[in-house]
Amino acid sequence: MPATGLRLAMIGLGTVGTGVAKLLTQRPEHLRSLGVGPLELKTVVVRDPAKSRGIDLGGARLTTDFDSLLADRDIDAVIEVMGGIEPARHRIAALLRAGKHVVTANKAVLAEHGRELFEIAHQSDRSILFEASVAGGIPILAALAETLCVNRIERISGIVNGTCNYILTAMHERGLAYGDALRQAQQLGFAEADPTLDVNGSDAAQKLAILARLAFQSKVDWRSISRAGIDKLDSMDLRFARELGYVIKLLAEGEVVGGKLSLQVTPKLVHQNHPLAQIRGEYNAIQVHGDAVGDLLFSGKGAGEMPTASSVVAGVIDLATGRGQQTFRALRLWETEPAGPHFDPTSQAKSRFYLRFTISDRPGTLARIASILGEHGISIASVIQHETPENKPEQPVPLIIMTHEASDGPVRLSLAEADRLEIARAPSVCLPVAAHA
Amino acid sequence: MPATGLRLAMIGLGTVGTGVAKLLTQRPEHLRSLGVGPLELKTVVVRDPAKSRGIDLGGARLTTDFDSLLADRDIDAVIEVMGGIEPARHRIAALLRAGKHVVTANKAVLAEHGRELFEIAHQSDRSILFEASVAGGIPILAALAETLCVNRIERISGIVNGTCNYILTAMHERGLAYGDALRQAQQLGFAEADPTLDVNGSDAAQKLAILARLAFQSKVDWRSISRAGIDKLDSMDLRFARELGYVIKLLAEGEVVGGKLSLQVTPKLVHQNHPLAQIRGEYNAIQVHGDAVGDLLFSGKGAGEMPTASSVVAGVIDLATGRGQQTFRALRLWETEPAGPHFDPTSQAKSRFYLRFTISDRPGTLARIASILGEHGISIASVIQHETPENKPEQPVPLIIMTHEASDGPVRLSLAEADRLEIARAPSVCLPVAAHA
Repeated sequence: MPATGLRLAMIGLGTVGTGVAKLLTQRPEHLRSLGVGPLELKTVVVRDPAKSRGIDLGGARLTTDFDSLLADRDIDAVIEVMGGIEPARHRIAALLRAGKHVVTANKAVLAEHGRELFEIAHQSDRSILFEASVAGGIPILAALAETLCVNRIERISGIVNGTCNYILTAMHERGLAYGDALRQAQQLGFAEADPTLDVNGSDAAQKLAILARLAFQSKVDWRSISRAGIDKLDSMDLRFARELGYVIKLLAEGEVVGGKLSLQVTPKLVHQNHPLAQIRGEYNAIQVHGDAVGDLLFSGKGAGEMPTASSVVAGVIDLATGRGQQTFRALRLWETEPAGPHFDPTSQAKSRFYLRFTISDRPGTLARIASILGEHGISIASVIQHETPENKPEQPVPLIIMTHEASDGPVRLSLAEADRLEIARAPSVCLPVAAHA
Repeated sequence: MPATGLRLAMIGLGTVGTGVAKLLTQRPEHLRSLGVGPLELKTVVVRDPAKSRGIDLGGARLTTDFDSLLADRDIDAVIEVMGGIEPARHRIAALLRAGKHVVTANKAVLAEHGRELFEIAHQSDRSILFEASVAGGIPILAALAETLCVNRIERISGIVNGTCNYILTAMHERGLAYGDALRQAQQLGFAEADPTLDVNGSDAAQKLAILARLAFQSKVDWRSISRAGIDKLDSMDLRFARELGYVIKLLAEGEVVGGKLSLQVTPKLVHQNHPLAQIRGEYNAIQVHGDAVGDLLFSGKGAGEMPTASSVVAGVIDLATGRGQQTFRALRLWETEPAGPHFDPTSQAKSRFYLRFTISDRPGTLARIASILGEHGISIASVIQHETPENKPEQPVPLIIMTHEASDGPVRLSLAEADRLEIARAPSVCLPVAAHA
């Protein structure tokens, strides 16, 4: 059976779309060497065909008419790189029903409407390929869905939002405040004009929902994932973390605890020797623990024109070889009750915690905080309390406590109690500490 | 098209074979959830069926009769985990000709006779799956052959021999001499009784040849890869490296330089902030630079029962879905002239170098060495020379020089010249420095 190639259309010609067009048109010899037949980009649907884009589309037709794709029998598969929920959702559904495979980089539409779209694909005997939707160029979804699939995945822990990682790296390494680091990330193109969904953890939660479906075979509503962002972080806590030998990273984590799946997006203290502590700037990384394979780490660029385009075209090539259809069929992503552990939004793995109290430095202060923790069964691992400046005896001082492993509930109760003390000068801060693999 | 499953035999029931049997027989529910139909291990060919193995083979027949597999029409695919060149080579060939797919973890037979076996597979319309042959549980071959294949890979750099990495880590972190670290690795099962092929770089060169075929689409005779092992390393050089901020790692590297492929296995100084410097003990890691995706890092356990078995079973599942056959067909590994750059065994990328001279400390010594280097156009970046102990003025002292980037040839000439000086007390030592990604 010789490879017959694939006739393609694309919706969207922004950053990623431009990268995809470059890969499909500017390396014909390399593509020929892949043994998959010609990959022909025939049509690109854009909002404004007159806009100058400085890229040679190799003869592809530019059009605003999305509907023309549906009836075009010379299109086998469509690349969706427009992003967002609508009209992407309805367009993907219509394309599948019209008999086109879909390759997408759109994590938002998959996190929100994935099962419904997978069901439509299944009914239409077509496939959705989505390697590019999580962690840009890192081939993590193929690894989970294919090469590692005999493993029972016990834990994943990832840095999957490059904007947050860029900001946190700038705060750590250059001592910037959050707002300054964000503005710099925006100037350099590592953060959007409206960065809300990145910095509040929503983007990471959407990606975690997709990862969890493949890693754990669990059904996850991304909105139910407990999440905190980096937008409330005080640079003081990054300094204290460093003093203790840690960096702060926004982690998207999943773990099977007592037969249930626990998922969480939150900034955590990561020990400086932990592999994820080394991931700097806009890079992403995902650590996977499989019961057979042990710990694996994948790292690389999590976004950007060419890294993401590399994963989009991987989907196209998977369709051209026929692999993509086989994998999609085996994954059964349309099932309403997948085989994996039940996702319990209230389940939390135990953890160590970093606590910061802001208090008046009077005799007996440390003892009072320590006894509240002790009453809740929380054991103290280490303490930092610097002296109050002599000329400002009434200035509130930070008291940093690292706990041994504890459950989330008692920690929250202790903090609420400590915050009601008359010596409390500001609400306490609590960050979990990442387990060391 | 419903998945029909796969009827399997296995040759060999050592460490990896036992792991494979466990995965195929001890998680039926998980395997059923993968949507690939039953994976039934029917026959295992061993040398001594009476040997107690403490593993339930789930009804598989144990036999010494390899030839019975060839005629057995109820076997679709055979897992080869016996290792070594013969009889593995002839058995794989016979199985393919008898219409069986082959899944193998045997890098030696693929490095030595790969093209011939791929040709036989092609002629027999069968596939060879070999993810497990390089870097154990790390899904690096699938990534190169599938997800990253649109990239022109410009460079790979890997730690692919866990034995060497275990020994080097023990030398660095516990100050052990090479011989002591090797003995400890042997006691813990991280080194073979005869470790020659591991410690002299041959094993890494065989893996590099397989990686290079997929990454660069180049034909490589592994015996032509320039290689040095770790068996001649002096722990003094690990100490000096650390003093300079480096660790020493055995790297298997490939790079396209001026349109030609350069490949090398050699111990190199790796800066402590380089991602490969963090890879400890028996772990492996591979860094890949693709022109679209940029830098990616994959790390995990490079050997052992369950990690390697995870990759073997990945091959089985790839066959069961049909993906394996599609990928094998697209890769065209049987081609005598693949499309990639020509492997030039004499081509060397430029590098910085660590040089150690053992000299009598007389006035003008440093000037003489420095002028030899200067005459060959080699520029000095830094120097370490400790004082001679006052009571032993005639004791030879080490002089450490880190060079700026230089070509291999002039460096070798300089060293030969320096070694002929009357102040030279022992042959000089030269180690390249890994480029920082």
